[in-house]
Amino acid sequence: MLGKTRRLALLAEGCFNATDAKSAVGVLRYRGSEVVAVIDSTRAGRTAQACAGVGGDVPVVANLEAAAAFEPDTLLIGIAPQGGALPASWRAVVAEALLRGMDVIAGLHTFLADDPELATLAAAKGCALIDVRRPPAARSVATRRAASVDALVVLTVGSDCNVGKMTTALELRAALQEMGVKAAFVATGQTGIFVADRGVAIDAVVSDFVAGAVEDLVVEAARDAEVVLVEGQGSIHHPGYSGVSLALLHGACPDAMILCHQSGRTHLKTGDAGPAPRIRSLIEIVRDHERAASWMAPARVLGLSLNTCSLDDAEAKRAVEHEAHRTGLPVTDPVRYGAQPLAAAIVRRLEERRRRAASA
Amino acid sequence: MLGKTRRLALLAEGCFNATDAKSAVGVLRYRGSEVVAVIDSTRAGRTAQACAGVGGDVPVVANLEAAAAFEPDTLLIGIAPQGGALPASWRAVVAEALLRGMDVIAGLHTFLADDPELATLAAAKGCALIDVRRPPAARSVATRRAASVDALVVLTVGSDCNVGKMTTALELRAALQEMGVKAAFVATGQTGIFVADRGVAIDAVVSDFVAGAVEDLVVEAARDAEVVLVEGQGSIHHPGYSGVSLALLHGACPDAMILCHQSGRTHLKTGDAGPAPRIRSLIEIVRDHERAASWMAPARVLGLSLNTCSLDDAEAKRAVEHEAHRTGLPVTDPVRYGAQPLAAAIVRRLEERRRRAASA
Repeated sequence: MLGKTRRLALLAEGCFNATDAKSAVGVLRYRGSEVVAVIDSTRAGRTAQACAGVGGDVPVVANLEAAAAFEPDTLLIGIAPQGGALPASWRAVVAEALLRGMDVIAGLHTFLADDPELATLAAAKGCALIDVRRPPAARSVATRRAASVDALVVLTVGSDCNVGKMTTALELRAALQEMGVKAAFVATGQTGIFVADRGVAIDAVVSDFVAGAVEDLVVEAARDAEVVLVEGQGSIHHPGYSGVSLALLHGACPDAMILCHQSGRTHLKTGDAGPAPRIRSLIEIVRDHERAASWMAPARVLGLSLNTCSLDDAEAKRAVEHEAHRTGLPVTDPVRYGAQPLAAAIVRRLEERRRRAASA
Repeated sequence: MLGKTRRLALLAEGCFNATDAKSAVGVLRYRGSEVVAVIDSTRAGRTAQACAGVGGDVPVVANLEAAAAFEPDTLLIGIAPQGGALPASWRAVVAEALLRGMDVIAGLHTFLADDPELATLAAAKGCALIDVRRPPAARSVATRRAASVDALVVLTVGSDCNVGKMTTALELRAALQEMGVKAAFVATGQTGIFVADRGVAIDAVVSDFVAGAVEDLVVEAARDAEVVLVEGQGSIHHPGYSGVSLALLHGACPDAMILCHQSGRTHLKTGDAGPAPRIRSLIEIVRDHERAASWMAPARVLGLSLNTCSLDDAEAKRAVEHEAHRTGLPVTDPVRYGAQPLAAAIVRRLEERRRRAASA
């Protein structure tokens, strides 16, 4: 990960479950062979699989001292709190990791390397502080260049934050590659960058340049791919993040979208004490995305990715059937059932596009 | 301006006309008594009025040396180039201003105070480098708090960048105050901040926190106002800036919007070599804004502010009548004809709201 194969200890103190430890779960699912331990003192002694439904026998331990038995060389901050700041109590853990000679990788809005004390300590120990959320120095303003790439651009969009947009894009990449399609993944958030070793955390980019950063990523990825899968962020319906989501939509200029939703979630996660907005019907969400996309370039929602992690098998099956019936779209939970139905819809779209291009 | 009454020299080299020198024109219109000269060597010897239709007898001069006759104490960088960087040739002018003992105020994405050479020079001369675009240290994520303030929140929105959103908001404030309504102006861009002495340049804020920054500004302004006029930015239809505009819309949660458009402009300003997107019909733009607003809180477009600066008197009159007929909305050019028709629509909305509140 990020320059070399690592032995990672994932810090997920107090939140290591399937829904709250988003980065840790993503890293365990897609870079699991590099994880030696998860730190969460409230769940110490269990396995990752038992806590978060992913990660197999990777042990959950109480602290860095206990993790040391598994010889980690890197501490990865495995949470993504709203606002992105480093919880004060975790700062000591970062310092301890450095003292133990470990690199530290983080995806926070507060950059570890800008903390003079931590930076001095890292330098003294010869360790790296890697802030994957730090934006690129180059800044560009988007001009719809992504609308004219040859590859088919597919963006995962969501009814809310943290519903499975990155996972859906990664599962689609795997499914398409299995079908012999050259598919690239564009990471736009910290966990995606952990997994893909590249990308831009667009929510940390100065707002004028978000669409431009996405455009640059898409144009580059399209050079060597038939399908470019762009990791979505937030939701155009989210009070805090709608602007980020629209910039991503208009920077990527996708030809197709996959709508991601978590079964059973009824209200947006706003991290607010007050009443959170209700999540609209999926039909409305599809319509709003197609409309907002059309302001820049027409795009269709091709299918629905349903995150059923909170449901049992029978409920999950019913939920998928129900949404397929209600929306008339292909529906799957890519983690539970594979991404095949959505990959097939993307391939049909790709072929349709090629036929149109050939006859033009 | 910004802490004290100043004697400003406005730098607008090569671009001092009514449409390209946005900041200079705004400062001349609303803080004109503080301007002693405009620097544009290509127009030296003329008056501000003759070049940009505003500023009366303020002289246009070739350089800082010529400006010295008018005893400026501050250089204001009066352009807002796309991307916001300081044109290389202007850097020398900033240094010269500092050598002459002047403060320098700028609204660029590149912060003058972060330039070690300029910072050292400023310190040596006891001068201030004021970057109004520097974002606030406090970062918050929006949660629709602005939707429940007591004041009526009005956002100026646009068919494109640089069509008159700030000017419309400022003219509306003046018209409402004349009608005895307590109206506040919320600046969201560099020129607005020059004029209002406060605000946040939201396009320079990290994208996750744009809506939150706007929300904070609106909630604060609403404490002591009946109407809060929020300066719009960009356009939800602009390839580069749509995300900023949507974050502003969802952070401000306006009750009403005024749509701003420049007569005769047919294509968006993208600063791109390729074909720029066409500007949609105003009816469509109204509909898209009302829809996008409704994702957070319902809002109506109450009227149309038409920038007729490129038309003669007869054409301007026809344009206003034509759009009023076509959209069914009150229409005015607030600079040419005053903001009265739009202010009246806002007051009607305010009264309607009070009646509803009283009967509830």
